Amino acid sequence: MTDLIARRRALLGPNVPTFYADPVHLVRGEGVWLWDAGGRRYLDCYNNVPHVGHCNPRVTDALCAQARTLNTHSRYLHEGLLDYVERLVATFEAPLSTALLTCSGSEANDVALRMAEAMTGRRGIVATDATYHGNTALVSHLSRSNVPEVGFGLGGFVRHVEAPDSYRIEDPDGRRFAAGVQAAIDDLESSGVGFAALIVCPLFLNEGFPTQAPGWLQPAATVARNAGGLLICDEVQSGFGRCGSHFWAHRRQGVVPDVVTLGKPMGNGHPVAGVVTTPQIMARFRQAFRYFSTFGGNPVSCAAATAVLDELEARGLQRHAERIGRLAHERLSALARRHEAIGDVRHSGMVFGAEFVLDRSTREPAGDYAERVVEAMRASGVLLSRLGRHRNTLKIRPPMVFDESHLDLLVDTLDAVLTRLPIAG
Amino acid sequence: MTDLIARRRALLGPNVPTFYADPVHLVRGEGVWLWDAGGRRYLDCYNNVPHVGHCNPRVTDALCAQARTLNTHSRYLHEGLLDYVERLVATFEAPLSTALLTCSGSEANDVALRMAEAMTGRRGIVATDATYHGNTALVSHLSRSNVPEVGFGLGGFVRHVEAPDSYRIEDPDGRRFAAGVQAAIDDLESSGVGFAALIVCPLFLNEGFPTQAPGWLQPAATVARNAGGLLICDEVQSGFGRCGSHFWAHRRQGVVPDVVTLGKPMGNGHPVAGVVTTPQIMARFRQAFRYFSTFGGNPVSCAAATAVLDELEARGLQRHAERIGRLAHERLSALARRHEAIGDVRHSGMVFGAEFVLDRSTREPAGDYAERVVEAMRASGVLLSRLGRHRNTLKIRPPMVFDESHLDLLVDTLDAVLTRLPIAG
Repeated sequence: MTDLIARRRALLGPNVPTFYADPVHLVRGEGVWLWDAGGRRYLDCYNNVPHVGHCNPRVTDALCAQARTLNTHSRYLHEGLLDYVERLVATFEAPLSTALLTCSGSEANDVALRMAEAMTGRRGIVATDATYHGNTALVSHLSRSNVPEVGFGLGGFVRHVEAPDSYRIEDPDGRRFAAGVQAAIDDLESSGVGFAALIVCPLFLNEGFPTQAPGWLQPAATVARNAGGLLICDEVQSGFGRCGSHFWAHRRQGVVPDVVTLGKPMGNGHPVAGVVTTPQIMARFRQAFRYFSTFGGNPVSCAAATAVLDELEARGLQRHAERIGRLAHERLSALARRHEAIGDVRHSGMVFGAEFVLDRSTREPAGDYAERVVEAMRASGVLLSRLGRHRNTLKIRPPMVFDESHLDLLVDTLDAVLTRLPIAG
Repeated sequence: MTDLIARRRALLGPNVPTFYADPVHLVRGEGVWLWDAGGRRYLDCYNNVPHVGHCNPRVTDALCAQARTLNTHSRYLHEGLLDYVERLVATFEAPLSTALLTCSGSEANDVALRMAEAMTGRRGIVATDATYHGNTALVSHLSRSNVPEVGFGLGGFVRHVEAPDSYRIEDPDGRRFAAGVQAAIDDLESSGVGFAALIVCPLFLNEGFPTQAPGWLQPAATVARNAGGLLICDEVQSGFGRCGSHFWAHRRQGVVPDVVTLGKPMGNGHPVAGVVTTPQIMARFRQAFRYFSTFGGNPVSCAAATAVLDELEARGLQRHAERIGRLAHERLSALARRHEAIGDVRHSGMVFGAEFVLDRSTREPAGDYAERVVEAMRASGVLLSRLGRHRNTLKIRPPMVFDESHLDLLVDTLDAVLTRLPIAG
């Protein structure tokens, strides 16, 4: 282990993130389970990339069959790309009927921002102050929590609005958030940058997946449209049925975005991502920019991505996510009645968690405590993390095949950990 | 076919590039061969991504075995990433000993430019006027041949120098090119942008892979270093033994770059790419920017990439590339003695081609003729393309397993096509 960490430092450089004080050395995965080099099994409550389960046989079979048949780029004709895009866009509402495939969500968001520039002739982007949309020079500036020192001055095009926080900020219908967006737009306009787009994850997942009434995002969307800008929904984390109630989380928000970006779970771990938009926006972008990606939309990526859609349908995983999410909420709420440290319980389908506070009356965030819980859960064989504006909320976002028995194990383990760990320790 | 083209337009939007007036509808690949939906076999003289051959069994076996075992991200420990990077950096000279893995060459170049910014505190980049380095907002501006209308004003950081052209421009030792780089640096400095890096493909492949004496790039590298900037070599096309004489083409140029970017052939079609640099530059970048890529360096990508190195070694493909390249040069030179349209023959290992001219005395480029030849070759069952400053040079860059019998078929087909097609038709 020490040897692996030393090798990482030498080969990859400093500051390469690992999870946990004692990082896990993984060797095998199956469904919701991961095994380390010592043969120990972990319940994976963290990873959304293996959407239909680690090493899902339908996906790996499709991947392998296609990799052994043909893998090439989209300058030749291939039905795999067209069949996949046809099927993908059929899950969207009109007029979202065209797609561009990339290798990563970062590349997808990099394209989405340029679509906004192409449509509006302006460059100002509004995002929340607790989000993350990727790692290219352009999109990295959307993260305020991790402002890069480098990035070709692109931060000047971004304005951040206060992230929603249903536990602390009164904003039942999203008007307060919309007012923040309007202020950011006004600032972009008065500074001469101009406003091109609002980009949000429709679950506000990194922000702590606040509880929101259906349609909560509508006022902000209206503000963005009235200012002549686009609404970009980054569904890299929230999409493909994870939110349970809908296949795409923006539908729960009652909005039709101009551009939707996809990623992580799309190929169950195979590097494939994309942008879905209207024919008008796609045409404008493709006229302004002769985009080509060598790997984007290759037959192997499309085979993996198609198998993910097949598996989601065949196993009814969206409905399953809704049911498990509701159950998880109930079970975590029951824990909250016995553990003072839990200030709030939230869920959106197969994303759920508990927010830790030092004191329920002040709601003071207990970030350090959350970290201790995450470490103790790892020591107890359950992998999860923390997130949110105050990094004090458990991030539980397992593969979609996570079922009731897994939930039992998760909640029982958490119960034991919270019982063992005094909040003010 | 018509149906596929109509579906592409509807699903992917306009202006999505395809090769050939009559695009090829591919269904299968093996080694240097591709098959279309009608069962017709094509000799693939174009694709460098399937570096060790289409559907190489060693690579697909490694890919499938790992995809069925574990596929996750690098925040956990996994030996696959460390073993691969160790092996990769061992192919480089000191002090190039650390790596960062991405999904695409575009992402790799996007990181490389930020490394230059992090090291120098400046943003000005110099590239040639006939190059291509990728599709992100930042790196897309390096292509002058395809200036995007959109791109957040990043074009202001780029200066283009005249690409080398060994057939038309007298520059035996690279001093003329270096003077162009100096002028671009001076312009960046006088305009207040400042100079951060020179980025080149060390084979100048898109520029038309000019014939250059060993060490030709040294004067330009010295100019860049004397101005306090970095030398970035984009080995996405030129690397992994393709140039025959060396595993990395920059060694033929007699330079040690500060940053090297890798891509296309690295995983034989699986989306994996990366950046190799010094510990000092990696540390500075990682301090300035907390880079993380969900898919970058995953165990499946590393397994595929490792199998590519295994296959290159086991089959001696670098030496093979050198031998075939020399033979190809001889065979194409023999054709040139009988076909007036061929003005020049060039090669760099497994990259070779012929430049077409309207008149050998004026060397006037015959771009339209080159296009007709490319189309006629496709009709005759041989896939290749054209490139270069004047788009009049055949781009022959086949999988590295291309052998003498394939060369016979290529040259015989080209001979027949040139005999049939009058240059002034």
